[in-house]
Amino acid sequence: MFGDVVLGIDHDAFEHEIVQLKQRAGVKFDCELDASHLRELVAAYKGVYRRHNLALPQDPWEQLRMGIDAVFRSWNIPRAVKYREINKITGLKGTAVNVQAMVYGNYNSGNGASGTGVLFTRNPATGENKLYGEFLMDAQGEDVVAGIRTPLPIADMSAIMPEIYKELHDTVKGLETHMKDMQDTEFTVQDGRLFMLQTRNGKRTGVAALRVATEMEREGLVTADEAVLMVEPRHLDQLLHPMFVNEKAYAKDVFAKGLAASPGAAVGKIVFTAEAAEAAAKAGEHVILCRTETSPEDVGGMHAAEGILTSRGGMTSHAAVVARGWGKPCVCGCEDLAIDEKRQIITVSSTGKEFKAGAYISINGTTGEVVKGAQPVAKPSSESGDLSKFMKWVDARRRLKVLTNADTPEDARVALSNGAQGIGLCRTEHMFFATAQRIAAVRRMIAAVELHSPAADEALAELQKYQQTDFEGLFRAMDGKPVTIRLLDPPLHEFLPQADDVTACGACGSALGRLCDQLAPELGVEPGVVQSKLEALRETNPMLGLRGCRLGVLYPEITRMQVRAIIEAAANVTREGCRVHPHIMVPLVALEDELTHQAKLIRETAAEVVESLGAPVEFKVGTMIEIPRGALRAGDLAKTAEFFSFGTNDLTQTTMGISRDDAQAKFLGYYIKHGILASDPFETLDTVGVGELVRIAVERGRATRPGIELGICGEHGGDPASVAFFNDVGLDYVSCSPLRVPIARLAAAQAALRAKAEAASK
Amino acid sequence: MFGDVVLGIDHDAFEHEIVQLKQRAGVKFDCELDASHLRELVAAYKGVYRRHNLALPQDPWEQLRMGIDAVFRSWNIPRAVKYREINKITGLKGTAVNVQAMVYGNYNSGNGASGTGVLFTRNPATGENKLYGEFLMDAQGEDVVAGIRTPLPIADMSAIMPEIYKELHDTVKGLETHMKDMQDTEFTVQDGRLFMLQTRNGKRTGVAALRVATEMEREGLVTADEAVLMVEPRHLDQLLHPMFVNEKAYAKDVFAKGLAASPGAAVGKIVFTAEAAEAAAKAGEHVILCRTETSPEDVGGMHAAEGILTSRGGMTSHAAVVARGWGKPCVCGCEDLAIDEKRQIITVSSTGKEFKAGAYISINGTTGEVVKGAQPVAKPSSESGDLSKFMKWVDARRRLKVLTNADTPEDARVALSNGAQGIGLCRTEHMFFATAQRIAAVRRMIAAVELHSPAADEALAELQKYQQTDFEGLFRAMDGKPVTIRLLDPPLHEFLPQADDVTACGACGSALGRLCDQLAPELGVEPGVVQSKLEALRETNPMLGLRGCRLGVLYPEITRMQVRAIIEAAANVTREGCRVHPHIMVPLVALEDELTHQAKLIRETAAEVVESLGAPVEFKVGTMIEIPRGALRAGDLAKTAEFFSFGTNDLTQTTMGISRDDAQAKFLGYYIKHGILASDPFETLDTVGVGELVRIAVERGRATRPGIELGICGEHGGDPASVAFFNDVGLDYVSCSPLRVPIARLAAAQAALRAKAEAASK
Repeated sequence: MFGDVVLGIDHDAFEHEIVQLKQRAGVKFDCELDASHLRELVAAYKGVYRRHNLALPQDPWEQLRMGIDAVFRSWNIPRAVKYREINKITGLKGTAVNVQAMVYGNYNSGNGASGTGVLFTRNPATGENKLYGEFLMDAQGEDVVAGIRTPLPIADMSAIMPEIYKELHDTVKGLETHMKDMQDTEFTVQDGRLFMLQTRNGKRTGVAALRVATEMEREGLVTADEAVLMVEPRHLDQLLHPMFVNEKAYAKDVFAKGLAASPGAAVGKIVFTAEAAEAAAKAGEHVILCRTETSPEDVGGMHAAEGILTSRGGMTSHAAVVARGWGKPCVCGCEDLAIDEKRQIITVSSTGKEFKAGAYISINGTTGEVVKGAQPVAKPSSESGDLSKFMKWVDARRRLKVLTNADTPEDARVALSNGAQGIGLCRTEHMFFATAQRIAAVRRMIAAVELHSPAADEALAELQKYQQTDFEGLFRAMDGKPVTIRLLDPPLHEFLPQADDVTACGACGSALGRLCDQLAPELGVEPGVVQSKLEALRETNPMLGLRGCRLGVLYPEITRMQVRAIIEAAANVTREGCRVHPHIMVPLVALEDELTHQAKLIRETAAEVVESLGAPVEFKVGTMIEIPRGALRAGDLAKTAEFFSFGTNDLTQTTMGISRDDAQAKFLGYYIKHGILASDPFETLDTVGVGELVRIAVERGRATRPGIELGICGEHGGDPASVAFFNDVGLDYVSCSPLRVPIARLAAAQAALRAKAEAASK
Repeated sequence: MFGDVVLGIDHDAFEHEIVQLKQRAGVKFDCELDASHLRELVAAYKGVYRRHNLALPQDPWEQLRMGIDAVFRSWNIPRAVKYREINKITGLKGTAVNVQAMVYGNYNSGNGASGTGVLFTRNPATGENKLYGEFLMDAQGEDVVAGIRTPLPIADMSAIMPEIYKELHDTVKGLETHMKDMQDTEFTVQDGRLFMLQTRNGKRTGVAALRVATEMEREGLVTADEAVLMVEPRHLDQLLHPMFVNEKAYAKDVFAKGLAASPGAAVGKIVFTAEAAEAAAKAGEHVILCRTETSPEDVGGMHAAEGILTSRGGMTSHAAVVARGWGKPCVCGCEDLAIDEKRQIITVSSTGKEFKAGAYISINGTTGEVVKGAQPVAKPSSESGDLSKFMKWVDARRRLKVLTNADTPEDARVALSNGAQGIGLCRTEHMFFATAQRIAAVRRMIAAVELHSPAADEALAELQKYQQTDFEGLFRAMDGKPVTIRLLDPPLHEFLPQADDVTACGACGSALGRLCDQLAPELGVEPGVVQSKLEALRETNPMLGLRGCRLGVLYPEITRMQVRAIIEAAANVTREGCRVHPHIMVPLVALEDELTHQAKLIRETAAEVVESLGAPVEFKVGTMIEIPRGALRAGDLAKTAEFFSFGTNDLTQTTMGISRDDAQAKFLGYYIKHGILASDPFETLDTVGVGELVRIAVERGRATRPGIELGICGEHGGDPASVAFFNDVGLDYVSCSPLRVPIARLAAAQAALRAKAEAASK
């Protein structure tokens, strides 16, 4: 330590000597070295000093002074400066140095008056209010860690040294009362006298966090405000999703790691096709659908599976988005796996291990781990008892509303039961993927969209019927709560078979060819016409291509169809006695005239429907802010938009110039690992870059239209750190996937409490 | 007119009646209708009024009053309001109305004292200071337009009515002196009395503009400042590029229109392959290389051809970028053409016309027109005589420096002769495309880049040698002027054969397969290893993918190789007695740590080279601002960057969320046509969106580092309207392609003069 920390000699130089010595001595642990070994070691260490032209000062006071200097110096090393910068730790003058005498738990070994141990004031696994820990007689902390002797449960100490145990009990309970949280402590007893070495707030499971917080409030130790701050959002994650009983237990069986795309634990047999998944599910079997990538054709099988595993695609890949919508565990972009659907085999590239169809695997969508065998899973809690009481505290303390991203009445119902206050994002295109008929109709529409043929009209009419049914379901489910519907957003080629679909012959695009052969007679044209139409949809950078409102501007018939479906559905459900508040949202707006064009079309179409049905429908028209220019020109957009919803996924992509799917595997991982990025900007909002555009848009939007409704519907809506930013920047709501709603509620409450505390401290 | 403009009846309703009447009467021109026809027409027009429940007021004063009202009303129609908004016309209270009596050029027909004509005060084609125009005795203006009778040259009028002619001459010369510009006038002589109907500044050719401006200055009519403002930047375009002698003459032979990708006129025989182009050029033939798209393999043939025509790809496609660099005419993205390289035939999709190899065509890179046959071409002027004098005025009046984008010593020399003050952008990757050996070395580097194999080292060493030679050439050519070198920018897969290369079998990617077979033995690995490496480079959105500084961060060996080449080249050329100022530019920076990472690598590598060579080299390190986040965080970036160069092409793509290549054909054209966008944001900077980010970055960059050098190297650097913005926002320089340098110089001077005038008027 001294040579390393104080004099700056590389720690490895010392480590090398002791390792060699232990080899020579044939021992495993440092404590097995005898006095002559230690003499030898001292000589070797002195050699290390000599080789560095340094010496260990022989005066202990000189050693102490140099040690203290080293701690003071550590305040200004680049790593520490950077750490303070990142964590915005300012206004401190330097670090303090504590100088303490050592105590020895192995003092006077054998007389039963010395020992050492670790202790939690409550059970960190269950939260039970009972001391939890272990101790070892005649030992130092290092011996506990080394694992040579087995420590005893802390309760046994009351028999061995009853008075010390009582003193320990009272001391740690006093610490708990003082610190207002469950404590994780270390202690040493030296010759009958108790010394507390350390105390800190203890880490705990979700179950324990909830129990500790609610019980401490009941005991009068903390206020409800404080209790709300004691449960971390990730604790709720553990409470609400099925989790593996013990994530540490399966460590040796983890054979790959991918992206934690949709949280929760899932266990099942490997299947490689959607058909196999559906068949197995019908037969009552649990399966994990394993595919290179998923496509719209796979939705049936994805729904039937317990979980989804892919080797390609990022956090916004088809598999990830669909799975999150359903709250189904998913691990994606697992690049170390070669998933061969033809040969029905998964090969782990780095190790060569193989897994065949029918073998059991477990996937952890919260961590991205892929595990051999069927690992035991614990069921999630429901929002009752302590949890229900806790969430009432949470809701009473937050300013931000929490809405949900939901594409189906099923999603909506899950979200409602999780406390969602409306739908902040309904992605109408997801409805298109729901059944084979629907996707077929979409493809007819796409292939014909400029021809204004009867086939196109028929396809649009069919889609309108589907959408209307879905919207009616959503409106009924959300009775009285706002339902924000985004008009068609993705590039049209996303609805076509992928060129590199493995079921196609090579990469010849024959899946597309077959589709053309099928569509041509339906549309009454030659296959070549369909093919050139569909091929023309290909784009070099689809993210920046013909999508969002650009589709609606070029193909007003799509916007009209969607608006008719929304307004007719609203009228029908209103007639049933429900209250309906549709918010119609125009995506990807960069130019004021894009929005005015679409808003005019929406209002005209709605007026036509209202007139023909003779039933008034109230609705709002707003826009997504997901392009930097849209944020900068928010003042103009607010002239037309009655609400803004920040699409922070796309806004992050364009503001940072990062294609999420490409980046994750290619350089984002490297950037995060090497500290070029502090965190994944698609998980936690980049507040100083993307966040500045959000702030600008909020200010300019409100300046034009003071009452404008402002929310966010990117995945950041479920990320606690980002929710805190959205609270501070003054949004009205966040919208997130149904299963993240409770987490967002908690994050919003904590953000509000922290903002209040900060305001009070000023 | 009255029914249409004053009463709002659709003009077509009247037009329909007169068209029908002329058919019935069997005449072609309105003036051929006789009195009875006109009586019939009046009745028909009255019918139109009746059908609209309106009547023509019979009191002429009432008609006049209503007419005046209509003009006043026109001030507030949406189109006029929008027009004033777009053109920032503010502070006006309304429009004026002039009420004038008609005069008649056909008064007392036959007595030789009436007539009408149009007249330029100087020759609008050549600029010669001599009246230019035509007149018609006993006629109204409409008769001149109708073209039934052939007008006489204006000079003939001096014989027919000498006194009137003298009066006309003195009047128009007086108008010219008053308006301080060449005038385009209309006049009528009624019964021996001259009336001037209209005067306005006359449109003119580039040659005429230059002559008029310099002669008027010599004549003392205008100051040099005013003369500089009289020549439009597009006039210089005409003077400096080979142009068609008469663009109107070939109108009927235009068979397609594409993007005006690189200006100038080119004529040659159709060839379909690079090999054919090179062979024909060797044989002394002029050819136009026609391809669906070009790729790096085509550069030899592109260089040999007079011009390049493609059916796919936008303004930044390979063909467009390479052609502009060379100043070679290019029309690209000509979507109406099916260019079938196999069958050696071009088919015009809309008309079915076909053109075979060997047929002559002409392409106009200034307008995008593709024309049948060999159209006559005029040679460009060189910067001498009047032009040289004029450009001296220009240079004395501008604040902005004008640099050039140049990738080769040849480019650099062209730019220097056009007045470039340095290189603002050298795209090192373009050097990689220059020869087959180079691209082969690049491909070996890419395929091996992570293997750290001897093959990779060898490829890097070879590339360093090529780059060093090129840099030496550039440094020598620019002796003493700054040379800004951008480190490798494009995604690596751009150096690979394209998957949809038409020479490959279908879309099976076998061109890539062949490359893998060839690279594998060179790298000493299996073809499968190379293939999976190269396939992994594919990206969904390459624009937002692994490119720019991200490459340099992940593969520091590429940055090191490039820096070594730059510094060694600089040391060598310095030793020859030249002065060298390399500016090393890190592209696509979004994060501060990307820049600090690369800057550290650059400075360390440079220090190594300097130490090993023992010769000091001064250089600057800076960054491109081409990502919105980079602009927003410019204050941080300026801590490290000694200069910023705005990459407004990419900044426009990310700020507006538009992929240029995809957008141009898919929706940008539609947007511009329908007024959703006022102009193409890739031609003229979107000043209120993208421009705001430029402004923010300028302010924040200067706040951190007051002396920071600021420039722009996107294609907007050659666009006059954008140059005016860059002048106003306070940049130090613009950089543009070599042939646009004189235009940028003029635009910079005009911007400075206008800014001065605006400041004086405040």
